Amino acid sequence: MPKWVYNFGAGEAEGHAELQGKQEELLGNKGANLAEMASIGLPVPPGFTLTTEVCSHFVDSGSYPEGLKEQVQKSLQTLESRAGCKFGDSENPLLVAVRAGGRASMPGMMDTVLNVGLNAKTVEALAEKSGDERFAYDSYRRFIQMYADVVLGIDSSHFEKMLRRAKQKRGVNEDHELGVEDLERLVRDYKTKVFVELGAEFPTDPQVQLWGAIGAVFKSCSSSRAKTYRELHDISEDAGSAAATVQAMVFGNGSGPDSASGVAFTRNPSSGDNHFYGEFLLNAQGEDLVGGIRTPAELTMQARLAHGNTLPSLEERMPKVFRELVAVREQLEKHYKDVQDIEFTIQKGKLYMLQTRAGKRTTHAAIQIAVDMTNEGLITKPQAVMRLHPSQIDQLLHPTIREDAKKQVIAKGLPASPGAAMGKVVFCADEAVQRVNDGEKVILVRSKTSAEDIHGLHAAEGVLTTCGGMTSHAAVVARSMGRPCVAGAGHLEIDEAAGKLKVGDVVVEKGQKLTIDGSTGEVLLGDVPTVVPKVTGAFRTLMSWSDEYRTMQVRANAETVADARLAKDFGAEGIGLVRTEHMFFVGMRITAMRQMILASDTRDRKDALHRLLFMQREDMTELFQIMEGHPVTIRLFDPPLHEFLPNTEAELSYVARAAGVPVDRVRRRATELNEANPMLGHRGCRLAITYPEICEMQTRAIFGAAVEAGRTAPSKKFPVVEVMVPLVASVGEFKIIKQIIDKTAAAIQKEENVNFEYRVGSMIELPRAALQAAKLAKHAEFFSFGTNDLTQTTYGLSRDDTGSFMAEYKAKGIVACDPFVTLDEDGVGELIKLAMTRGHSTRPDMKMGICGEHGGDPTSIDFCQRIGLNYVSCSPYRVPIARLAAAQSALKARGEEVGSPEIRAAKPRVPTFGPW
Amino acid sequence: MPKWVYNFGAGEAEGHAELQGKQEELLGNKGANLAEMASIGLPVPPGFTLTTEVCSHFVDSGSYPEGLKEQVQKSLQTLESRAGCKFGDSENPLLVAVRAGGRASMPGMMDTVLNVGLNAKTVEALAEKSGDERFAYDSYRRFIQMYADVVLGIDSSHFEKMLRRAKQKRGVNEDHELGVEDLERLVRDYKTKVFVELGAEFPTDPQVQLWGAIGAVFKSCSSSRAKTYRELHDISEDAGSAAATVQAMVFGNGSGPDSASGVAFTRNPSSGDNHFYGEFLLNAQGEDLVGGIRTPAELTMQARLAHGNTLPSLEERMPKVFRELVAVREQLEKHYKDVQDIEFTIQKGKLYMLQTRAGKRTTHAAIQIAVDMTNEGLITKPQAVMRLHPSQIDQLLHPTIREDAKKQVIAKGLPASPGAAMGKVVFCADEAVQRVNDGEKVILVRSKTSAEDIHGLHAAEGVLTTCGGMTSHAAVVARSMGRPCVAGAGHLEIDEAAGKLKVGDVVVEKGQKLTIDGSTGEVLLGDVPTVVPKVTGAFRTLMSWSDEYRTMQVRANAETVADARLAKDFGAEGIGLVRTEHMFFVGMRITAMRQMILASDTRDRKDALHRLLFMQREDMTELFQIMEGHPVTIRLFDPPLHEFLPNTEAELSYVARAAGVPVDRVRRRATELNEANPMLGHRGCRLAITYPEICEMQTRAIFGAAVEAGRTAPSKKFPVVEVMVPLVASVGEFKIIKQIIDKTAAAIQKEENVNFEYRVGSMIELPRAALQAAKLAKHAEFFSFGTNDLTQTTYGLSRDDTGSFMAEYKAKGIVACDPFVTLDEDGVGELIKLAMTRGHSTRPDMKMGICGEHGGDPTSIDFCQRIGLNYVSCSPYRVPIARLAAAQSALKARGEEVGSPEIRAAKPRVPTFGPW
Repeated sequence: MPKWVYNFGAGEAEGHAELQGKQEELLGNKGANLAEMASIGLPVPPGFTLTTEVCSHFVDSGSYPEGLKEQVQKSLQTLESRAGCKFGDSENPLLVAVRAGGRASMPGMMDTVLNVGLNAKTVEALAEKSGDERFAYDSYRRFIQMYADVVLGIDSSHFEKMLRRAKQKRGVNEDHELGVEDLERLVRDYKTKVFVELGAEFPTDPQVQLWGAIGAVFKSCSSSRAKTYRELHDISEDAGSAAATVQAMVFGNGSGPDSASGVAFTRNPSSGDNHFYGEFLLNAQGEDLVGGIRTPAELTMQARLAHGNTLPSLEERMPKVFRELVAVREQLEKHYKDVQDIEFTIQKGKLYMLQTRAGKRTTHAAIQIAVDMTNEGLITKPQAVMRLHPSQIDQLLHPTIREDAKKQVIAKGLPASPGAAMGKVVFCADEAVQRVNDGEKVILVRSKTSAEDIHGLHAAEGVLTTCGGMTSHAAVVARSMGRPCVAGAGHLEIDEAAGKLKVGDVVVEKGQKLTIDGSTGEVLLGDVPTVVPKVTGAFRTLMSWSDEYRTMQVRANAETVADARLAKDFGAEGIGLVRTEHMFFVGMRITAMRQMILASDTRDRKDALHRLLFMQREDMTELFQIMEGHPVTIRLFDPPLHEFLPNTEAELSYVARAAGVPVDRVRRRATELNEANPMLGHRGCRLAITYPEICEMQTRAIFGAAVEAGRTAPSKKFPVVEVMVPLVASVGEFKIIKQIIDKTAAAIQKEENVNFEYRVGSMIELPRAALQAAKLAKHAEFFSFGTNDLTQTTYGLSRDDTGSFMAEYKAKGIVACDPFVTLDEDGVGELIKLAMTRGHSTRPDMKMGICGEHGGDPTSIDFCQRIGLNYVSCSPYRVPIARLAAAQSALKARGEEVGSPEIRAAKPRVPTFGPW
Repeated sequence: MPKWVYNFGAGEAEGHAELQGKQEELLGNKGANLAEMASIGLPVPPGFTLTTEVCSHFVDSGSYPEGLKEQVQKSLQTLESRAGCKFGDSENPLLVAVRAGGRASMPGMMDTVLNVGLNAKTVEALAEKSGDERFAYDSYRRFIQMYADVVLGIDSSHFEKMLRRAKQKRGVNEDHELGVEDLERLVRDYKTKVFVELGAEFPTDPQVQLWGAIGAVFKSCSSSRAKTYRELHDISEDAGSAAATVQAMVFGNGSGPDSASGVAFTRNPSSGDNHFYGEFLLNAQGEDLVGGIRTPAELTMQARLAHGNTLPSLEERMPKVFRELVAVREQLEKHYKDVQDIEFTIQKGKLYMLQTRAGKRTTHAAIQIAVDMTNEGLITKPQAVMRLHPSQIDQLLHPTIREDAKKQVIAKGLPASPGAAMGKVVFCADEAVQRVNDGEKVILVRSKTSAEDIHGLHAAEGVLTTCGGMTSHAAVVARSMGRPCVAGAGHLEIDEAAGKLKVGDVVVEKGQKLTIDGSTGEVLLGDVPTVVPKVTGAFRTLMSWSDEYRTMQVRANAETVADARLAKDFGAEGIGLVRTEHMFFVGMRITAMRQMILASDTRDRKDALHRLLFMQREDMTELFQIMEGHPVTIRLFDPPLHEFLPNTEAELSYVARAAGVPVDRVRRRATELNEANPMLGHRGCRLAITYPEICEMQTRAIFGAAVEAGRTAPSKKFPVVEVMVPLVASVGEFKIIKQIIDKTAAAIQKEENVNFEYRVGSMIELPRAALQAAKLAKHAEFFSFGTNDLTQTTYGLSRDDTGSFMAEYKAKGIVACDPFVTLDEDGVGELIKLAMTRGHSTRPDMKMGICGEHGGDPTSIDFCQRIGLNYVSCSPYRVPIARLAAAQSALKARGEEVGSPEIRAAKPRVPTFGPW
């Protein structure tokens, strides 16, 4: 006969030792924690738990398993003897609470019935025994209301209304001000209401009540409410089975000055401060606190003073009980090694613990608590590092709207790239650049963006689109550039011709200020104040501990001075990807770039390149200076040239004017350069093969900057320059380009009479490059996996074009997650591993890293660690995330357990963004 | 001391045994063949050859290797004793010919100097010894002219002019009509001219003459002319070194009736007929024949009669010498086992062989000769099959312009897709379709084509573009459809608005007839008669022999009835690729298709699909009927939907009218469906996932057709249906689509109360599919490698966009050949092998084949054979090529040698087209 029921109480818990590690699975989170508390000697009212297996049996077959009734009766007898009273007894009646506890914690989702066992006889006995008639009828009233709601399915609002009327009649505000007579009348009225609604009498047999409550609890776990919750929180249906715990009632709703119910967190769950944090209500049962019907009092005097609460704190009102509770708090934290969310009841001056569970907390608090607990010796440093899900800290790394700011939200879109940004509204990329050159800040507003808008995206503070989703072009590019983005704000209407943005009655004209919050998707009118993030205090400590365990390097993708500084502040150990073309999108550079593309002869082209050379050298010098000796990995020009030329007539003539050429020539050149599949076209190293002068110019700029940075450095040391060749498909390409680079480097070393080291590496972003890795490694000195392109080509999937079907692919379970967000280990991952093996077979000490979008995704970072990459490179804003993820991955490899119980129970709700 | 010089003559050849297999490499083709002929006892004037290693040394260092002079002097002595005269001797002088012979045969490219050793003294001795003064001075005149040209670099035209003037003066037409005095004067005048041009006397020392001639021969192999020839014929520079052969002169220019020079082919090189085929000139040296200064006589009487030549044939004029020559012919063919191209001289009734080499022949002749020689027992069947390069037979498989047709060529472009086609000129795809529906034939003329023109390309007889190259969209699609195409005819100007095509003064209006020849690139005015190819006679025999040795199946890519019939005629063993979408491009189908895409609700969409269902079922039924029990592999709908919607305003409104919807809706839908990278977008099985109704319709059409075809078949057998799913990247996709197919098949089997077999396979055209092959094979019943897309994704290279850099990639040696023409074994090939291994690990008996462009490329077919694929599928027009290539590959695996000496010596000039 399987064991269906487990007892607890009187300082022990049945089967505690055997169940180690699977208590929650079998007893539900609530039953398991009660048993746990009982086993460590905390004052827990005795009880027993019907396992989740009973629930599964009940849900599947609609009936209880054989032998259950007998086991429950036996446990009930044990309970009676422990509680010193008898269920249904007309003199000394035992009342019980029946509570649901899911395998996963689903607060507020599962049903509970309190005070089970009351009827006309037992209520009298309760009154007699307690000498508190009001308390007895209060309990009876509560029981009928709760049982009718949870078990009989009669809407609670009927009873609320009747309760309200009774208080009005009596002229009082609060429940506990009702007298015995009022309550007796309410009980009668409630029973009548039940009869009317149900067509049957309210059950009076305690056994009928008990099994009714147990059945309701089991049913509640398959309610649509619970299902929705599990969906929202990514809890599997399998983890949805509940256990039912039957526990002797203790009463906080007695009438005296020494009965109360309370809830508390062992530490402040918002700030993480190590202060006991909670509240209680005199003469109340637990649900009164949850319902918020009266103002509760604070636990501690300190909190009362801080909040200006005039009600005496528990510390002041019941110092002895308070001391007991403080001791419980300490014992719980020592036992669970985590912050606890507890419920307790004080019955005539005696403390009872009704619940404990890992406390939900803000990211800020989670960090503070992890660090404090380590310093207190409760947990180890590795445990502290494992306590957070890396993506949780994303919210700490972006500018946020100030909490006290006045906000006028005019629309809501998708939170496509986190952070808040403010600027003047512009509708066209070129105008964005123009205004930014004039010293203004802009928000670029478009129905959707394309490659031709990149310079505008770069110039803007943030991007707002009315079409497209989380992986639309605007979203992806904005994330890659660390620009906030709200995408697909469909209620907004753009009237570009009139220079207006409309939503309902609100009209925003071009040039007016707008704020967007890419973390929430909100679009706000005007200039809303924001707060800039800092890595300080406990956060800084936790990050430094992460670095102690981390074995993989974390670099940043950055090309602007601002991004490079931010990356450094956030702990980047170098730059893993400088997208040189991004430097060409800014200000005068784009004009020179366009002149280069439009040049009709070699002289014009060389002229334009010469101007670009000076500008690019200056940019590079600054990057080297900021990175002071950390490696800087520079990717040669990558995108197809037509990204620099516009398509619309208005923009064409603007460009023609700026470049000083006839509009026809711009149009012709744009048409000439137009490609059927630009992603697979004339780009990457293919450009360096056909336009070696661009490669020469860039190489000259890079090494010129290296010399300049070395000479001006306090250490006089030259920077570590790594040049990488994009979109390599064959060894021949790499060899030709490496020759250009080596030749230029030699020329500059001779001209400047210096000697600097540099490395030339290959990007591996095409399947063929991965396959050819052994041969490539003969010439390439490092590999950088460009996982964006590698995912595109391995899947044959353009990231810009997945919008029309990716949602359906996820819904049908074809992909578990967007392969552009989390690296596809099966396909893309295999190619990476293969390239590593082959590359190392030729050059065993070769450094390899990734610089694709996945470099900032924790799951992908874990993969990188497992396969032994040397570094990941990600958006500056994700550097701390990557540091933490890499540390956790290294610790996991050492056998450390991931996450707190809270994190293990449910996946984080924070959406995982895919930055570059 | 290395051996630099090899003697031959007197029935033997020095080092003949040791050099087996590398004679040509060391002695050049000419020297090797002379030595070979000497060794088998043919009458070869004695001589010796300076090896190609001497040449390499000379070209590299500018000087001769040590010991050479001594070896030459020694060989000269041997030669003198064999010839019975002495070089430079004033009484019995030896004259020699110095000839270049490359490692590879380069006819007419390498220089020769005859009659070396003549000066004022030796000419007299020659006159005396021969008793023929005219002959002696004729030889002297020739010698000075040739030596001045080849060795001294004095333009031959000077001497030609002087010779012409001398004949005018004498009042004769032919050289041999000049008398001794005339020749003596000419010799004097020649020498004066040399002095004037050179500023030095013509060399009189025979040793100086000899070394001058040897040096010139060696230099000639690095001349720009020779380099160009090697480039044009894909002969490596390494194979460019020449040997110099010094050989005793024999004289056909003696004055009597028994001296002559001749050339011959052992069989007719144009028809392949087994007739001795050649001509001779009395009293002439070899170069007179080449120069064409007199009408030659035929060798045989039969030929003389056939050609109406009044000059007596050799057979009639010198019957004994003729019989000797016929014996030589037989001996040569028996020895070389191939048709020979020979040169001979008759000196006073004695026959001398001066050269033999494999005879160049037309493809037609090559086939005839291979088959005849097999029947004659000269070669084996496998040898016959190995005799042709598969791509040679391409010219026999397309409609050609009739040889006697009157042609008015108005422009020339690239021969982008072979065959000739005639039709009325149209400038827009939709008009093409419209006119074809009205029963006309059209030639589509565009500056370039894009995906939106596919229906027009399909409807047209042929395509003519003014921009783009051999791998432009028009070229690739035309080849895939077997439509002739002339691409990049840059001299043509299209004035679409006026409906005109201009080139110089010629104007072709819309609707006027034009003929294009995609095999030559010619554009011809009007309707030029063409000839349709047939596989008959020797060609049929050779193909049937090929099939005896072939182990790999050859199928065709076809969807129209015409293509399927052609494929069957050409020997296809089933269809390996039915591109169902091509069926939608035709006639009313495109209208229904557009209605489906433009449908605003499910009812409209289902209506349109229903109409398509009937049309597609009819098409399929016909294909099954034609293929009678051979497998038919049908690919589900593949291209992105926007390929069916146009972009230009004119076409948009045309489509709107035809589909009966507002033009705005067409425009909006076209914009909606527009993609950044259509190749990597919403296409292939992704469409079947998001629009399962399309997949259902297609499946219903396919199986409905199978039932129909089975019921009407004489055998009552159901066809072998293979359905393949395109662009699979993950197992999930395949499973979902296979479910739809299986469900539909089951439904039809039930409805129709029949039982038919079918297989569902996966295309492997993405790297990820290749990697996932083991898992895919759990569900997929066969694999078909789509090597076009697999090449695109493995290389990250869009075939439509390589135009801007592929030429440079070839020039710089980054790619040996276009990977879209010949399968890239290193990259794409590795993925194919990997997918095969993994697929077979799950399902050992799984059938696998390729249906990409490479299925018709001989080199790629050889790869397919080597890795063990079961079949290749190619354009109908390439089926015979594929059959031959597959047979050769199978024979090669058995150790059979490839090709004839002619083919081994040089790659074929026929461009390799890349059909689908």
